[in-house]
Amino acid sequence: MPAAAVEDSKAHKFNPNFTQQVLAATGQNVNLRVKQLTHSLIKHLHDFARENELTVDEWMMGVELMNEAGRMSDSKRNEGQLLCDVLGLESLVDEITYKLATDAADEPTATAILGPFYRHDAPKLEMGSNIVRGKQEDGDRTWMHGTVTDSMSGKPIEGAVIDVWHTAPNGLYEQQDPDQPEMNLRGTFTTGKDGKYDFYCLRPVPYPIPFDGPAGKVLQALDRHPYRPAHIHFLLRAAGHKPIVTQIFDRSSKYIEDDAVFAVKDSLLVDFTPFKGDPNAEFELPYDFKMATFEDAKNGMLNGSTEESGAV
Amino acid sequence: MPAAAVEDSKAHKFNPNFTQQVLAATGQNVNLRVKQLTHSLIKHLHDFARENELTVDEWMMGVELMNEAGRMSDSKRNEGQLLCDVLGLESLVDEITYKLATDAADEPTATAILGPFYRHDAPKLEMGSNIVRGKQEDGDRTWMHGTVTDSMSGKPIEGAVIDVWHTAPNGLYEQQDPDQPEMNLRGTFTTGKDGKYDFYCLRPVPYPIPFDGPAGKVLQALDRHPYRPAHIHFLLRAAGHKPIVTQIFDRSSKYIEDDAVFAVKDSLLVDFTPFKGDPNAEFELPYDFKMATFEDAKNGMLNGSTEESGAV
Repeated sequence: MPAAAVEDSKAHKFNPNFTQQVLAATGQNVNLRVKQLTHSLIKHLHDFARENELTVDEWMMGVELMNEAGRMSDSKRNEGQLLCDVLGLESLVDEITYKLATDAADEPTATAILGPFYRHDAPKLEMGSNIVRGKQEDGDRTWMHGTVTDSMSGKPIEGAVIDVWHTAPNGLYEQQDPDQPEMNLRGTFTTGKDGKYDFYCLRPVPYPIPFDGPAGKVLQALDRHPYRPAHIHFLLRAAGHKPIVTQIFDRSSKYIEDDAVFAVKDSLLVDFTPFKGDPNAEFELPYDFKMATFEDAKNGMLNGSTEESGAV
Repeated sequence: MPAAAVEDSKAHKFNPNFTQQVLAATGQNVNLRVKQLTHSLIKHLHDFARENELTVDEWMMGVELMNEAGRMSDSKRNEGQLLCDVLGLESLVDEITYKLATDAADEPTATAILGPFYRHDAPKLEMGSNIVRGKQEDGDRTWMHGTVTDSMSGKPIEGAVIDVWHTAPNGLYEQQDPDQPEMNLRGTFTTGKDGKYDFYCLRPVPYPIPFDGPAGKVLQALDRHPYRPAHIHFLLRAAGHKPIVTQIFDRSSKYIEDDAVFAVKDSLLVDFTPFKGDPNAEFELPYDFKMATFEDAKNGMLNGSTEESGAV
């Protein structure tokens, strides 16, 4: 189809009143935000169908892909979310959220998507603990440490809770892998007065997102690989501060320019440096977090939904 | 949001390269139509998110709605399809298909959506049979009859198979209702040399689409009712002709201006007229079908997907 036709979705040969008729069915007793979102979605879906002259077969293939994603989804897997991820939608919503927050406040640590492998009940560990559970696995042992500060005042935050999780060297999160101990490579740490934290983990490796479902079909249809660059997930909470959902990425990792879910940001690239003098670690990873107060961020919506979306 | 911002989705404050980055991940080894549809969908989804400054919560509510629809869907129910129906998408795809076909051929009978209650194995019945099975139910007994002709030549079509289905007077299709006999109010009829058909049925009544799932949630959120006006479904096939999926609507029915799934077309409105002299029917319904040959319609795509979509 010519680019001009795509640009101007009003210029088509189909019933020009149909979409308006669907929108006009909306009643009076509606939440205005729900109405805005639904009407916008209807307009985009209809424009998509008209611009591409969507056939019944193609539409039905899309319906079946959605239904299949729903049937695969349960408390351990969210295939609908993964389908959005490979289309870039979760990373885009994250970038919208972060942009609105930083427009309203001093710059906190950049955010990245939560992803489908978060668990809300990771064990509370003592500062300096190792999040590797059971026997030591393969992988480069790493000492990670830093300080959690307030993004405006620069002062350390006491009582900040750092929730960390990453994959095992085989590329699987513990809940995907019956051979890993429960809660392997997960933990939460609470800062003291100095805002400092430290723990031992492994240097993460790239891994494929699950590609045995609709998200995998989309990747295959687009001739794309399913790999994510090596990263560690964080969820930070502290009284009076907006939660931060983020990931940090190993700058030297394969796929760093080519994340299957488009979550990499420059400010989240980190360097694992060789570490001498600690018998428990071959690498060191210093990283500081900056959190915005609710007051700073009150005009934004920085990760405001952590509690709810964490449940999936 | 101001209308201007919605009109020009390029004018926003977010990373202007993000969508291009997602599209650029597509590999070389792709079907061009799959690429066109997926890229267009990604652009529309991203524009939708940016124009509305979609939050993580709102996005996640959409994911959960899709997942729930998938979990409810099985061989007897397609909730993903129903979700599209209440957003007008199935009727729009039907109108696109029909417009392309009529641009290429003489005007056949207008089409309407298949809906989720078609069964491919309805019983073959003798001309003049009653599709009410078991004891006569309540409802106005109707004698329907007409001729199937070729839309170009006007000649009767021999061997046309007419597949008909409609709801019982309680508003339920037989597969939704354990109290109805198997295949109640369904049947297929094959025309002879004269192209004529006739059978007895009931005058249909308005009924609600199932609203105990995500489609119902959308209707409720938009303060909309779930009712469809009274209608009878048809699927016509004949050798050398494009299949026709359609519905005819009782002009005097409630909801005729306000179908929950937007399928009504003026040319599909019919009149049930009081009928004297037949002890088996209180009403008469004459209706002729016009079918386009494959040659007439070869540049269009009139209902080309009947076989596949009928399986859902």
